[in-house]
Amino acid sequence: MGNCYRKKALKKADKMEEECGIFGMYSNTKDKNLARMSYLGLHALQHRGQESAGICVNQKNKLKVHKGMGLVSNVFDKDSLEKLKGNISIGHVRYSTTGSSMLVNAQPLLTNSIKGDLALAHNGNLVNGQELKNNLEAQGSIFHSTLDTEVIAHLVARSLKDDIKEAFIQSLNQLKGAFSLIAMTKGSLIAARDPFGFRPLVLGKKGNDYVLASETCAFDIIGADFLREVAPGEVLIINDKGIQSRRYSNNKPNTFCVFEFIYFARPDSVIGGENVYLARKRMGKRLAQEMDIEADLVVPVPSSGVAAAQGYSEESDISYADGILRNRYVGRTFIQPTQEMRDLKVRMKLNPISKILKGKDIILIDDSIVRGTTSKQIINRLKEAGVNRIHLAIASPPVRFPCFYGLDTSRRKELIADKKEVDEIAEFIGANSLYYLSLDGILKVLQAENYGYCTACFNGEYPTEENYESKEDLNGTLI
Amino acid sequence: MGNCYRKKALKKADKMEEECGIFGMYSNTKDKNLARMSYLGLHALQHRGQESAGICVNQKNKLKVHKGMGLVSNVFDKDSLEKLKGNISIGHVRYSTTGSSMLVNAQPLLTNSIKGDLALAHNGNLVNGQELKNNLEAQGSIFHSTLDTEVIAHLVARSLKDDIKEAFIQSLNQLKGAFSLIAMTKGSLIAARDPFGFRPLVLGKKGNDYVLASETCAFDIIGADFLREVAPGEVLIINDKGIQSRRYSNNKPNTFCVFEFIYFARPDSVIGGENVYLARKRMGKRLAQEMDIEADLVVPVPSSGVAAAQGYSEESDISYADGILRNRYVGRTFIQPTQEMRDLKVRMKLNPISKILKGKDIILIDDSIVRGTTSKQIINRLKEAGVNRIHLAIASPPVRFPCFYGLDTSRRKELIADKKEVDEIAEFIGANSLYYLSLDGILKVLQAENYGYCTACFNGEYPTEENYESKEDLNGTLI
Amino acid sequence: MGNCYRKKALKKADKMEEECGIFGMYSNTKDKNLARMSYLGLHALQHRGQESAGICVNQKNKLKVHKGMGLVSNVFDKDSLEKLKGNISIGHVRYSTTGSSMLVNAQPLLTNSIKGDLALAHNGNLVNGQELKNNLEAQGSIFHSTLDTEVIAHLVARSLKDDIKEAFIQSLNQLKGAFSLIAMTKGSLIAARDPFGFRPLVLGKKGNDYVLASETCAFDIIGADFLREVAPGEVLIINDKGIQSRRYSNNKPNTFCVFEFIYFARPDSVIGGENVYLARKRMGKRLAQEMDIEADLVVPVPSSGVAAAQGYSEESDISYADGILRNRYVGRTFIQPTQEMRDLKVRMKLNPISKILKGKDIILIDDSIVRGTTSKQIINRLKEAGVNRIHLAIASPPVRFPCFYGLDTSRRKELIADKKEVDEIAEFIGANSLYYLSLDGILKVLQAENYGYCTACFNGEYPTEENYESKEDLNGTLI
Amino acid sequence: MGNCYRKKALKKADKMEEECGIFGMYSNTKDKNLARMSYLGLHALQHRGQESAGICVNQKNKLKVHKGMGLVSNVFDKDSLEKLKGNISIGHVRYSTTGSSMLVNAQPLLTNSIKGDLALAHNGNLVNGQELKNNLEAQGSIFHSTLDTEVIAHLVARSLKDDIKEAFIQSLNQLKGAFSLIAMTKGSLIAARDPFGFRPLVLGKKGNDYVLASETCAFDIIGADFLREVAPGEVLIINDKGIQSRRYSNNKPNTFCVFEFIYFARPDSVIGGENVYLARKRMGKRLAQEMDIEADLVVPVPSSGVAAAQGYSEESDISYADGILRNRYVGRTFIQPTQEMRDLKVRMKLNPISKILKGKDIILIDDSIVRGTTSKQIINRLKEAGVNRIHLAIASPPVRFPCFYGLDTSRRKELIADKKEVDEIAEFIGANSLYYLSLDGILKVLQAENYGYCTACFNGEYPTEENYESKEDLNGTLI
Repeated sequence: MGNCYRKKALKKADKMEEECGIFGMYSNTKDKNLARMSYLGLHALQHRGQESAGICVNQKNKLKVHKGMGLVSNVFDKDSLEKLKGNISIGHVRYSTTGSSMLVNAQPLLTNSIKGDLALAHNGNLVNGQELKNNLEAQGSIFHSTLDTEVIAHLVARSLKDDIKEAFIQSLNQLKGAFSLIAMTKGSLIAARDPFGFRPLVLGKKGNDYVLASETCAFDIIGADFLREVAPGEVLIINDKGIQSRRYSNNKPNTFCVFEFIYFARPDSVIGGENVYLARKRMGKRLAQEMDIEADLVVPVPSSGVAAAQGYSEESDISYADGILRNRYVGRTFIQPTQEMRDLKVRMKLNPISKILKGKDIILIDDSIVRGTTSKQIINRLKEAGVNRIHLAIASPPVRFPCFYGLDTSRRKELIADKKEVDEIAEFIGANSLYYLSLDGILKVLQAENYGYCTACFNGEYPTEENYESKEDLNGTLI
Repeated sequence: MGNCYRKKALKKADKMEEECGIFGMYSNTKDKNLARMSYLGLHALQHRGQESAGICVNQKNKLKVHKGMGLVSNVFDKDSLEKLKGNISIGHVRYSTTGSSMLVNAQPLLTNSIKGDLALAHNGNLVNGQELKNNLEAQGSIFHSTLDTEVIAHLVARSLKDDIKEAFIQSLNQLKGAFSLIAMTKGSLIAARDPFGFRPLVLGKKGNDYVLASETCAFDIIGADFLREVAPGEVLIINDKGIQSRRYSNNKPNTFCVFEFIYFARPDSVIGGENVYLARKRMGKRLAQEMDIEADLVVPVPSSGVAAAQGYSEESDISYADGILRNRYVGRTFIQPTQEMRDLKVRMKLNPISKILKGKDIILIDDSIVRGTTSKQIINRLKEAGVNRIHLAIASPPVRFPCFYGLDTSRRKELIADKKEVDEIAEFIGANSLYYLSLDGILKVLQAENYGYCTACFNGEYPTEENYESKEDLNGTLI
Repeated sequence: MGNCYRKKALKKADKMEEECGIFGMYSNTKDKNLARMSYLGLHALQHRGQESAGICVNQKNKLKVHKGMGLVSNVFDKDSLEKLKGNISIGHVRYSTTGSSMLVNAQPLLTNSIKGDLALAHNGNLVNGQELKNNLEAQGSIFHSTLDTEVIAHLVARSLKDDIKEAFIQSLNQLKGAFSLIAMTKGSLIAARDPFGFRPLVLGKKGNDYVLASETCAFDIIGADFLREVAPGEVLIINDKGIQSRRYSNNKPNTFCVFEFIYFARPDSVIGGENVYLARKRMGKRLAQEMDIEADLVVPVPSSGVAAAQGYSEESDISYADGILRNRYVGRTFIQPTQEMRDLKVRMKLNPISKILKGKDIILIDDSIVRGTTSKQIINRLKEAGVNRIHLAIASPPVRFPCFYGLDTSRRKELIADKKEVDEIAEFIGANSLYYLSLDGILKVLQAENYGYCTACFNGEYPTEENYESKEDLNGTLI
Repeated sequence: MGNCYRKKALKKADKMEEECGIFGMYSNTKDKNLARMSYLGLHALQHRGQESAGICVNQKNKLKVHKGMGLVSNVFDKDSLEKLKGNISIGHVRYSTTGSSMLVNAQPLLTNSIKGDLALAHNGNLVNGQELKNNLEAQGSIFHSTLDTEVIAHLVARSLKDDIKEAFIQSLNQLKGAFSLIAMTKGSLIAARDPFGFRPLVLGKKGNDYVLASETCAFDIIGADFLREVAPGEVLIINDKGIQSRRYSNNKPNTFCVFEFIYFARPDSVIGGENVYLARKRMGKRLAQEMDIEADLVVPVPSSGVAAAQGYSEESDISYADGILRNRYVGRTFIQPTQEMRDLKVRMKLNPISKILKGKDIILIDDSIVRGTTSKQIINRLKEAGVNRIHLAIASPPVRFPCFYGLDTSRRKELIADKKEVDEIAEFIGANSLYYLSLDGILKVLQAENYGYCTACFNGEYPTEENYESKEDLNGTLI
């Protein structure tokens, strides 16, 4: 039954929109051109998505979008950026996953309906996306992409509210799941966050202009000041009448995605008043407290384990070393995606330094394990480099449940911790021992103010499902 | 009032889909890959559209499309073509006009709805496209493009018929205007032509495989045999049950676009049993009979006037000369679209040969005049080359009315013959005299069997408008 | 022995620089930017070479070159053209042949030596290129390319003359064979033509600026006036002291390449006061006089046979028809260069019009036959189209000898007329009969003033070899 | 006089070939294709040069090269790599500097001479490059590029030795300065290092195949074993007779470039038995010993100061923090190279984390200061982030003299430490205090066995100049 459940869940996940970065800006100075600001903002958010990038502006009373496959720096050049002029602008970067890599899925999504032009940039994943799509199709809607975002555009178009902003707000109530949204019409910039607050969304100001972004690091690059977070269940409308805040939903328990702290967010971003790098360092310290084992060196898997490894070393007084070199240049392997390619990918990216590691007992720190295959390859290379004993320490709990709220399921889809016990995983990946940070431990060290967390991937407690009790029951209610 | 009418008509025309080339092929041999055939077919139809190109195939029980901006040879390379595998394939090339040149408007248009996957390749223009769009938007439909074709996809999705083929046929009855359509679902290739038969569409066979194309020249390149034309008001469904023909509409007077013979179609194509090159040559002969003036040389504007000039020379016994060289290489001017650029464009494309022309009286032959600016530039260059007298002879009547059925309106939008009399036009463009073929004359020389013609651009008699009587009345009923 | 001779000759020919187009311009107005003029000039000369293109300018007291593979319109865009600023500019287009298609062989060739910076644009082929190269290598020179042009740069560098212009002139005396050269230093534009005058080179003026080009059609596009031809054995030096003409060589018999008239030059160019199109038309007339056979239609192989076919029709009073359509768009075949590809290439380019040709006896006109394979394919397609009898008429004599002076040897290397008699060729290509214009005939109709011609490819009389008497003797002296 | 000296020195430096990465491989298995190995090796050496990349192989008894501008992953794709087949292969990556970024300067340099085909990959800079070039030009040589490497090719061509390998060895004796060279002929792979051993070059083995590379990290990626370093003054010849070692020069004092340890080499490489990362960490420790000041945090400038900062923190017991985030994605600024662009570049690349740094006294660690402008911008941003006091600590001595042996002079050309005292530098860049590691200190911590070092950039003692005594005297003898 668990298997059946997983399969259905993963099938749902196949159409996920996953991790993305979103950005928006509004200026009352009509002849300001904000596309350049969006470009810089997207550059700062590039870690949230490398598959596609796009920017939309209002230009000559129309919305105009430029988007393409690849990194921000590949999609835009001087010419294409200069052709995008407008005092309202939104941008989007999308995470790369196999299968759905098509231009038609790039965002912002620009559509025209009886309500007028609407552009949408979406981060998150709807639990009821397919259900809504089925309903819409039953009413005669057609779909060009596999994006949840297109569902939202349809709901806006079909709303009984005449005003596009009101229609947008009304449509939010029909969405179930995770979404941080930035939208634009010809005259307004709009932002909304789901009632649970799964995905981040922050509001800032640069001079007299308002800015919205997935993370604060996008404010730093353009020199904007952080004002506050967009609240769960809040919608913001920014136009020539100023900024207006409304609640479109009752209060829900706040369940922010804990993996933003563990892995997704950029170390220099601030979430709930908490710096991400410092949070990760504290996870490493806590891990050291929970583990308390002896070794010669603490070594991170770069770059994901660096902050936690520094914390571990400080707490444990075991010496820290960058014992694995990470090549900063991305190499292409020109091979079909076989098992052999995966080996070469690790080899082109990471290189253990034998002079540092040979004969040593090390504590190898990483942020998480998903399928375990990359860990296995790294440990194999460490052994070739002459490491004596490898204690793998993970600065988060085992990922045992799939995510319905926007995590990368191509990375998460074969969850080794769902199928194996900790000692079995250690054996599989070849570590002498394996440790995970406890769920209790991670929640203790997170210091974001007034924050609750979604920990569904660790314990299966999905916030959007009202009466889950066990994995089995959940199956019944979910599908 | 005429001006007002014109403006509204042109506003409509702004969203026109205009001249396009379409191609489709079906094989019962499941492992045949027809994308290559579509590629060759589109190459032969390239003269019908240079803005964008696309091919759709059925692959692994899905429809898969590859499209892009530019010529067929730029959009496709070896890799992209090899990735398109399927035993059903449709293709499309689109004419380049300012403003609407966006990837989102490239075809085939692939959509998903409750009826299933549907890909559409469309040539023509709907008179009621905007009206249908308004209705659909009023019912909550959203639009990604400015294509009439997207309207058709919506009608199919909203049809009460469950079967996608039946839904497609039903939707045809709601369309008013000009359309030749090739559609594909996962299992069927479908073709349809509007009841007036404005745009061409032919059926052929290569071995056991069926082929559809805008013109017969696409059959020649792949070695297919011409079977017959798709009839006005007919729909063809080709799948594993064979080929099925149905009439979805009552008979209408056949009004084939006379400009296909004058300008659009490739000289080697056959329409209604009539070869286009020979038809054009006959237009030139008829022109000679109607004009009967003296001159030293007959000189064509290349390439559009070549066939008519040959006919004129044969009939009049005035010597023929290729007195203007056409550079076969397309040059780019790197200048903003100003008046100066237009001069340079002519200069980069055409070069009068002074050694041939100096001191001569010539009859300069072209197929048509639209705005008159290009003619003016050519005549100016001919004078610089030392021509004595220039009698401009046009192998068709004056274009005085805009086209609602798919002609290029960026070329046609400032119709000089609507604003000026013949002698005024001659003066404007600098010709010593100017002659047009009579409407009666052109209809007499066309020998396509059982064909009627749309001559709305000459006389304002729009076939789709039931009770037009005069230009003024028309205005009232049309808008 | 003949075979041995041919092989050696062809081996030599493998390194040929072949047909190219060259352009140069000089302005005394120091802040004028002539790169744009070169761009237009090369566009007009594009028919002389499609493999690579390049432009060199003097900029900030340096020579700067931009070059690349492909057409002029592909190699240059707005940015690259704007970056080339200078009041002296030379340009080059190169013919595409298999094997030597490498960027390192693109021109202009820019080198630095003790004499200073020198850029060279070369059209032609040196008979003693390999010999000079061997000598230079024996003295320690190194070579980056397979170009004769690089040999010339070495000779200039090694000259005992200090001044680079004098060194250039001195080096010309060591060259044996065909060359039209445009060179530039930081301050001068230089032009030179070999003493036999194999390849064309013309001088013009636009306002106060001097222009040089392979053909007059490059003057027309920029609005320059033709002054005169650069004389065989003449060198021109243009700089701030004005224009200076010098003879560097004694008089030789003028032996202009007759194939410039037959095939290479653009129809609108003027050579020796003679327009190329009219010359070709006269060849067709002469052919009609020599042949005198009956048929229903005269049909050209487009575009190479068009002018001659028009002349033939006029002279013979047999009706002319464009019975074979030429697709103006270049298609790519995505296939390895096998025999099958060649068929597809013809199919993608040419289409016989059955409606015109069926059941007819035709005289098919082309400019020349080299290997015969393309003719064979065309005739095969004509038969499929239902032509009754095909009389192939060639508007030049049989090509029986290889060219050492710059003709395309990949096209010319398997000369069918060297191996077969006329009736055998007719049989091979499938024509009912085959006719060639006589050598005497072609020389009679050419009316260029004071011109002699190289007819080596027809009769083996190579002007640069002093005492040839027979093909066998020639072998002895040449190699 | 110093100024004059500097200008001349820098003028020399303008043509420098600078830091590069080189790779070579030889297999006796004739049908092995080593281009792929070179691709991987160059990927591992990418940090040594990002301007251009190239690979040369022996193919069908010819040398064939593919090279282009940009990163290895941009220059090569699947197709271009597959077309390079051979059992001998060399590769090159080149550092990007303004002005000389031209394809003609990309390596390997492939030339043809009387000695045969020769391809060269060069890392280093010749002190007598211009002098040799002048001599060669005086003898009539021509130059296509501004590379020292081309000088070497000329020397080989002009050698009196017939055998290309012997000619190559002979030419080495004429070179003065820094060079690590990998060359290939049709049958041999050759490596040579200058007698001082300025630049690294290592020899390895993968199975039966020999490998050469700038650094050991290129062996790790392909799984090759390190054998030994190529000795200063040694030449290696590898062909079907095996591997042969010869000394072409007398012993010189070994003067390895100390900046390889400080900055250039990859942290995982091993030089003289010494791991680079550990060496840098020890520099940081030594710096802590020399400085001994109080602060709250040790913060590196990422990535260049990371290893030293870790060492500093360990030694000083002051807490370490990654207080500045480095964006791993390279952004493009689309601005002209003005001062403003430089600011934006830092902003797009580095972001101080206010939450960590606010109100803190920090020791900011970097590897070196050249012009001081980047340091100034970083410190400015740190102040904006609220840092209290900033003590900048540099893990190497002040760079006061230009390098003639291959350092990047566009980075090094305005040496702030040549013009200002330490306290003036601190004031200029805005640090509260500034410290440098002593020259004595850095030499003490380096533990490479039997290594001497070139420290000319610190103390002006240029190893290749025999009797320098002071900066002034040096001027006299150098130029």
